[in-house]
Amino acid sequence: MRLTVMTDYALRLLMYVGQRPGRLCTIAEVAHAYGISEAHLMKVTHQLGRAGFLETLRGKGGGIRLANDPAKISLGAVVRAIEPDFALVECFETCSRCTLSGHCRLAGVVSGALGAFLAHLEAHTLADLLQPQDAARIAAP
Amino acid sequence: MRLTVMTDYALRLLMYVGQRPGRLCTIAEVAHAYGISEAHLMKVTHQLGRAGFLETLRGKGGGIRLANDPAKISLGAVVRAIEPDFALVECFETCSRCTLSGHCRLAGVVSGALGAFLAHLEAHTLADLLQPQDAARIAAP
Repeated sequence: MRLTVMTDYALRLLMYVGQRPGRLCTIAEVAHAYGISEAHLMKVTHQLGRAGFLETLRGKGGGIRLANDPAKISLGAVVRAIEPDFALVECFETCSRCTLSGHCRLAGVVSGALGAFLAHLEAHTLADLLQPQDAARIAAP
Repeated sequence: MRLTVMTDYALRLLMYVGQRPGRLCTIAEVAHAYGISEAHLMKVTHQLGRAGFLETLRGKGGGIRLANDPAKISLGAVVRAIEPDFALVECFETCSRCTLSGHCRLAGVVSGALGAFLAHLEAHTLADLLQPQDAARIAAP
């Protein structure tokens, strides 16, 4: 079971930006700090902006910053916004070909497990991930 | 976020076999009933056998049956046995290259969410998925 790499990058991007409330960050510096793809980070920045978690200022001297207080950014909401789907088993999909679709209890039990997973993330915010010592450990650009 | 198709097949295979306690089932009939790959089912049958959930009798007249009472087959144990990994974010992996590895709180929060997911499945057994009406709905071979 895996989350997509985009969700992983989204969470780390928000952590990086959240550690630097006083200034605008650039995608290039986040990519450099984590050693990850700038192209993927651009895509995830766009998604986070559209979902209302990030503000993007274009042009010279521009960059990205959080659109809200870290304590108001639910980790569950971020994962829901970035993860393309939660089709844990085939019967979750609209085009399911399972002969039992709609009649069996599997979807209900798996759906309950997914609910417990997301509820745990929804009980935490970006503020829970931010610690002063982390900022020092992320290599400055 | 997805489970692998093997875990999906494993759960459905156990449901099919669990609905027919009085006889041996064949992989061919399960594949036919669900319209899924016999090759994949063979692989998953082998894994379920090795993990102690299924008994396999070889030879003419052979087949598969549950190795235990459905009420004693935890869905969490099945998912843990079949799913190849739970590397939800990069820092879960042993070869993680994240510059924050070991120092940040992300792994702890995501790990807690995974724990809640598995705990929900562990609170349910195969018996919870078995209903008389399901058996009738699966096309007989």
